[in-house]
Amino acid sequence: MNGNRFGRLFQVTTFGESHGEAMGCTVSGCPAGVELSEAEIQAELDRRKPGQSMITTSRGEPDEVSIKSGLQDGYTTGTPIGMVIQNKDARSGKYEPFVTAPRPSHGDYTYSAKFGTRNWGGGGRSSARETVNWVAAGAIAKQVLDQSEYDIQVKAHVNQVGDIEAPEVSFEEMLEHTEENEVRCAHPETAEKMREAIDEYQKEGDSIGGSVYFECRGVPRGLGAPRFDSFPARLGQAMFSIPATTGFQFGKGRDARTMRGIERNEDWEFDDGESHPETVSEEGDPVPVGNDHGGLQGGITTGEPIYGEATWHAPTSIPKEQTTADWETGERKEIQVVGRHDPVLMPRAVPVVEAMLRLTILDFMLLGGRINPDRLDDRPGEYDTEYHPSSPVDDPDDAETRAESVDE
Amino acid sequence: MNGNRFGRLFQVTTFGESHGEAMGCTVSGCPAGVELSEAEIQAELDRRKPGQSMITTSRGEPDEVSIKSGLQDGYTTGTPIGMVIQNKDARSGKYEPFVTAPRPSHGDYTYSAKFGTRNWGGGGRSSARETVNWVAAGAIAKQVLDQSEYDIQVKAHVNQVGDIEAPEVSFEEMLEHTEENEVRCAHPETAEKMREAIDEYQKEGDSIGGSVYFECRGVPRGLGAPRFDSFPARLGQAMFSIPATTGFQFGKGRDARTMRGIERNEDWEFDDGESHPETVSEEGDPVPVGNDHGGLQGGITTGEPIYGEATWHAPTSIPKEQTTADWETGERKEIQVVGRHDPVLMPRAVPVVEAMLRLTILDFMLLGGRINPDRLDDRPGEYDTEYHPSSPVDDPDDAETRAESVDE
Amino acid sequence: MNGNRFGRLFQVTTFGESHGEAMGCTVSGCPAGVELSEAEIQAELDRRKPGQSMITTSRGEPDEVSIKSGLQDGYTTGTPIGMVIQNKDARSGKYEPFVTAPRPSHGDYTYSAKFGTRNWGGGGRSSARETVNWVAAGAIAKQVLDQSEYDIQVKAHVNQVGDIEAPEVSFEEMLEHTEENEVRCAHPETAEKMREAIDEYQKEGDSIGGSVYFECRGVPRGLGAPRFDSFPARLGQAMFSIPATTGFQFGKGRDARTMRGIERNEDWEFDDGESHPETVSEEGDPVPVGNDHGGLQGGITTGEPIYGEATWHAPTSIPKEQTTADWETGERKEIQVVGRHDPVLMPRAVPVVEAMLRLTILDFMLLGGRINPDRLDDRPGEYDTEYHPSSPVDDPDDAETRAESVDE
Amino acid sequence: MNGNRFGRLFQVTTFGESHGEAMGCTVSGCPAGVELSEAEIQAELDRRKPGQSMITTSRGEPDEVSIKSGLQDGYTTGTPIGMVIQNKDARSGKYEPFVTAPRPSHGDYTYSAKFGTRNWGGGGRSSARETVNWVAAGAIAKQVLDQSEYDIQVKAHVNQVGDIEAPEVSFEEMLEHTEENEVRCAHPETAEKMREAIDEYQKEGDSIGGSVYFECRGVPRGLGAPRFDSFPARLGQAMFSIPATTGFQFGKGRDARTMRGIERNEDWEFDDGESHPETVSEEGDPVPVGNDHGGLQGGITTGEPIYGEATWHAPTSIPKEQTTADWETGERKEIQVVGRHDPVLMPRAVPVVEAMLRLTILDFMLLGGRINPDRLDDRPGEYDTEYHPSSPVDDPDDAETRAESVDE
Repeated sequence: MNGNRFGRLFQVTTFGESHGEAMGCTVSGCPAGVELSEAEIQAELDRRKPGQSMITTSRGEPDEVSIKSGLQDGYTTGTPIGMVIQNKDARSGKYEPFVTAPRPSHGDYTYSAKFGTRNWGGGGRSSARETVNWVAAGAIAKQVLDQSEYDIQVKAHVNQVGDIEAPEVSFEEMLEHTEENEVRCAHPETAEKMREAIDEYQKEGDSIGGSVYFECRGVPRGLGAPRFDSFPARLGQAMFSIPATTGFQFGKGRDARTMRGIERNEDWEFDDGESHPETVSEEGDPVPVGNDHGGLQGGITTGEPIYGEATWHAPTSIPKEQTTADWETGERKEIQVVGRHDPVLMPRAVPVVEAMLRLTILDFMLLGGRINPDRLDDRPGEYDTEYHPSSPVDDPDDAETRAESVDE
Repeated sequence: MNGNRFGRLFQVTTFGESHGEAMGCTVSGCPAGVELSEAEIQAELDRRKPGQSMITTSRGEPDEVSIKSGLQDGYTTGTPIGMVIQNKDARSGKYEPFVTAPRPSHGDYTYSAKFGTRNWGGGGRSSARETVNWVAAGAIAKQVLDQSEYDIQVKAHVNQVGDIEAPEVSFEEMLEHTEENEVRCAHPETAEKMREAIDEYQKEGDSIGGSVYFECRGVPRGLGAPRFDSFPARLGQAMFSIPATTGFQFGKGRDARTMRGIERNEDWEFDDGESHPETVSEEGDPVPVGNDHGGLQGGITTGEPIYGEATWHAPTSIPKEQTTADWETGERKEIQVVGRHDPVLMPRAVPVVEAMLRLTILDFMLLGGRINPDRLDDRPGEYDTEYHPSSPVDDPDDAETRAESVDE
Repeated sequence: MNGNRFGRLFQVTTFGESHGEAMGCTVSGCPAGVELSEAEIQAELDRRKPGQSMITTSRGEPDEVSIKSGLQDGYTTGTPIGMVIQNKDARSGKYEPFVTAPRPSHGDYTYSAKFGTRNWGGGGRSSARETVNWVAAGAIAKQVLDQSEYDIQVKAHVNQVGDIEAPEVSFEEMLEHTEENEVRCAHPETAEKMREAIDEYQKEGDSIGGSVYFECRGVPRGLGAPRFDSFPARLGQAMFSIPATTGFQFGKGRDARTMRGIERNEDWEFDDGESHPETVSEEGDPVPVGNDHGGLQGGITTGEPIYGEATWHAPTSIPKEQTTADWETGERKEIQVVGRHDPVLMPRAVPVVEAMLRLTILDFMLLGGRINPDRLDDRPGEYDTEYHPSSPVDDPDDAETRAESVDE
Repeated sequence: MNGNRFGRLFQVTTFGESHGEAMGCTVSGCPAGVELSEAEIQAELDRRKPGQSMITTSRGEPDEVSIKSGLQDGYTTGTPIGMVIQNKDARSGKYEPFVTAPRPSHGDYTYSAKFGTRNWGGGGRSSARETVNWVAAGAIAKQVLDQSEYDIQVKAHVNQVGDIEAPEVSFEEMLEHTEENEVRCAHPETAEKMREAIDEYQKEGDSIGGSVYFECRGVPRGLGAPRFDSFPARLGQAMFSIPATTGFQFGKGRDARTMRGIERNEDWEFDDGESHPETVSEEGDPVPVGNDHGGLQGGITTGEPIYGEATWHAPTSIPKEQTTADWETGERKEIQVVGRHDPVLMPRAVPVVEAMLRLTILDFMLLGGRINPDRLDDRPGEYDTEYHPSSPVDDPDDAETRAESVDE
């Protein structure tokens, strides 16, 4: 079955199961000339990685990425970037009791019904472990964006855990506080309360749902396309790709249900050079007075901040006793899914959401011609008299003119 | 710009602007052997059509579809079905004041910023008029599904208008009551209240948001694919393609934020042949006790009803006075977008949501091999000694063996 | 069944059968700001149209295109361009004898075997009539290319009919002579001989094969992509899409079989500003000494002329007596496919080849960032203070500020 | 840049450069339930591998594939199959003289012109080393086909080297003799002559072109689709994806240029159960008398053998002295591309051609519903009470009901 590729021009194709040998992905469509830092990729992977705190699963995965192709002297060459991340702490044997007895609300049953089989070690392909690939690819997207002429910032934080909601925070607060605490909530006092609540759920052998708020700044005007590939449509696809997402909204979202037209509609004014620092508009540009639309009108970016929220249900792997139906024995049985698990998904979902946002934005940037799909630094079509990047040949004039060639 | 195609195997490619000459779409990938009723297509179009009641725009469009190809003797032939719907009541001249003065919260500005131009007559390509194509294509999908061996039912209704919420209704109530009133709310008393509220908004020259609830029954188990093409991901893309959608959720949706794992997780039991009439399961099958997951686990269908809700913001075309910024004159000006408009979008969104659901489901049915992509009635690969469907030649033996051929 | 779309960013989706009501296509992905001349489209259609000379089918089709969307004031808007071409001289009744008795070497049998049915009036979807859509779309691609900053020229001519081969001609001769004769061979004396031979075949109730040579100049360096989407791979797909093509080669093609490496390899020299007028290179650029590779190395354009040749088999509709097997009666019978037909395909294939070349080139130009996918004239991302193209509002200041709006 | 994926439902996405760290590919869309033998994959890789004989490059690559995902107990699970093949004998340093001095007729210049950089170690992404991925994926396709209910056979052999042409051989001879000699020519005496000629070219420091003939048997009727995704169109794409291909034809191919309609057209007869053993037809089926069309009519398979021929130019890496233009120094210089290289490409192209044919065929089988895309053995949609394949749990009743779960 397909469905392992995201993106139309910046294409990420992934493989791997939770307790298989390795995860991996191929990034096809990355422009040449991007200076790629493995450390930056690792930094993003570390934010997602299991075992990073007491409120995440204790599975011990270093999540070290090995880049197999697509680079020359540290720069991308425009060819596909193959990446592999070994699974080091897989323990698939632990799942034998569930081979024919589906865990409540996991993908065990649907995968078996579809394929007549499944990788029964853990969640297999339906596991959130897959998102390690997305974060690796998103970290490449981040570097492409950062090295482009645009100043695009993407940030998410946990704004709700169970019934604990964070008050609204500014984008600056998100940048400053999100990574300060293990919950990844940008409002420190709320983060503390969330942390206590999570401890309590964990103690009870239970788990809890919540939501993640995100905001993107500096995304240029005019990205997106009529209808099926509108910016919201692709954002919707991206968000609902993430395991355990049950809702997504942008702008005023579901609050728009009770808003009148006159209330939600945004008048237009001219940017006076001061009052709209958060947008890409410049003095004299028409600019909407407010941003209830979340930076998206007619399916296309307005240049205002893009913001929205996605909902996660509670993790389904919990140690509490539950009942399943074993299709081999034909009998119901009590099970416990004990062991290493996350009591909440959102803290680790934050880097995943950011990655999917960057992948979506970059794809639209390439589709809209904002970034040259062949190479980052130049307009294409001009002949290149200099070799980019820095030639590895110190003194080309000295180089042997009689060189050995290997044909393959 | 692309983005005018929906579907991977059942592909719908559309064209048309609100006040252009015609709308149209090409359905590529429809199996052969489907008896196609134009009347059924028309019936769906009539449900979406403007001017159907006092609470919709008074634009007079008959929305008659003309099928240009893909049929033989009333049956599909497996080749693309071209459809054209003439725009009969376009009045683009009325939009001249807005050519360089974007209407609040429309796509006027973003389209101009993207393309450097736009079809300025009405919403052009960003208008909801585009959805006439979707409903036409969805009506074909409906007939394919109805003539397959599956019994798939799709129904939506308006469950919220402003702050008026309908109580939960059963699927049977949705089938029975939705089309009884102009609001398309399956709860008659609420429908009446909604209707009154809408009248009030309309009288005030204003509009209001709300939401649509949907449910799909009989969708077989095992549809969907790992991750990026998961059923929820494609549903998300479908729903956020619809103009003015600001939120989407399935199953418990955003309520999952405050649910514990033990609460939302569904135990498994065996179907006893009585207690799960709403699912595709048969006696002895494992079946989840409840359906808080909305028929989707691990991104794949479980066979339980698929249900969810999408949110619409208030229509942005309202007669109330608003302010815009004319980028040609450099001056702000007051405008009124008077005339024919919808005070709410949801009643007409109901058939659009149903169409997008059917397009999504059928696409997954084809991708999952549930319906033969070549022809509806047979397993492929067997030689066909009979000509399907009914041969138009009454007595083939009498037919001339010396026939005239036209080469092109 | 799918397969009705060509192109990745410049997407052409087609519908129609030979004797159906209409042909049509949707061009999605055309940049905005292209001044589109319907007359230029018609001129290309006229070159392909049946009945244009004594050596083409006498079917009387005006092939007039009706553009349904995607234009404003004669300029493209970036939204999909819907086109419909009515079939005016369809005579499907003439095909009744063949409903269950497949004509030799037509698609009658394979379509029936695949779909269990088919549009039995003429070739239906397998007819070369479909190529009318391609030529219409190709004529749009031509205008996009012509209005870009590039000077790209595409020309084809008939270089072989049966055993009559034209000598090599220059690109200038192709431009000058091809359209001078009905055979579309750029070598006038050979054209005369071909014409006589074709008359002879036609008189005998027979037909003949042949080939078309093409050359493209001014295609910039660096188009194409690694491997599966290499320029030759997409060219191969394009050429073998054309009905009745049995072979395709580029550069030295099949002659390369007997060439040594040292013979076919091209040394590099520097362009001296004089000796390489046929390439895009400028003085001082490295340039290959010869062009045995046909402008393509490593699957990517070199800037040299791209040239190649495609082969057509003889038209299969011939009045000579042939034998078929009627699967309804179970008996063989003699048939004659008399009437209107082409004795050779190549003269009318010339504009089809040119169209497919332009569609392929433009698609790669967009994919390689050479042409802005959003709009032709500008780099994207800059705010547009002027409305493009010429505003239809004579005096915007006089325009009513209170305008009527139609919501759909 | 994209272009690293082949296939629409059986999708192969590749990465890797000639002298990079590793090659690899992800096979997405393989049905579940296929018993996958790594030894069979290796056997195909060994046929392609460098150093297998004196007439191939002496580069020492074991080409051992490591499967990272997609299997459970030796069976495919329907999830993507990630494969990695380490490069063990890369010697990129040898290419330093060519960094800014393109080798004649390689992709050095076009890649640099496109991307502004390139992997300069060997051919990088344009190297034929990439085809190791295709053969690995093709070997999976082979196993899917072999385990399906169809009996599909694919075979290729070298039918021309320089001016030495092999006489026509039967399919049985191809099966029997092709692998007996290093040239992979199914006509032993010709193979011997080819071998001698190749030795001579090699001795002279030169190389030579040639062609490969292929034939596929047992491919069911009705595969392919109208036009752009016709079987020949996708075959064309597949063949021209292969490095150094300059021509492709099927059926009578270029010989069709001089054939009359009456000569090439195939009458229809009924299969008498004896005279058409090479086709999929059964007694009583209509069947074409001959097969000049190469198993393809109207772009769709007829059930007859599919045959064709592809042309390769001579390898461009030759030790003979050649001249290049160094764009850094601005000077021409003499170079020799000495070392390990293939004097002919065809012997190693044989398994590559077979792989691309199988990938193409399987993709069409899935698209046409001939093979269930979800799982090999069953019609989908039925509930699976047995776990497939053989459960790894010996005695499920004994299994712990209290199991440890790992959440990721």
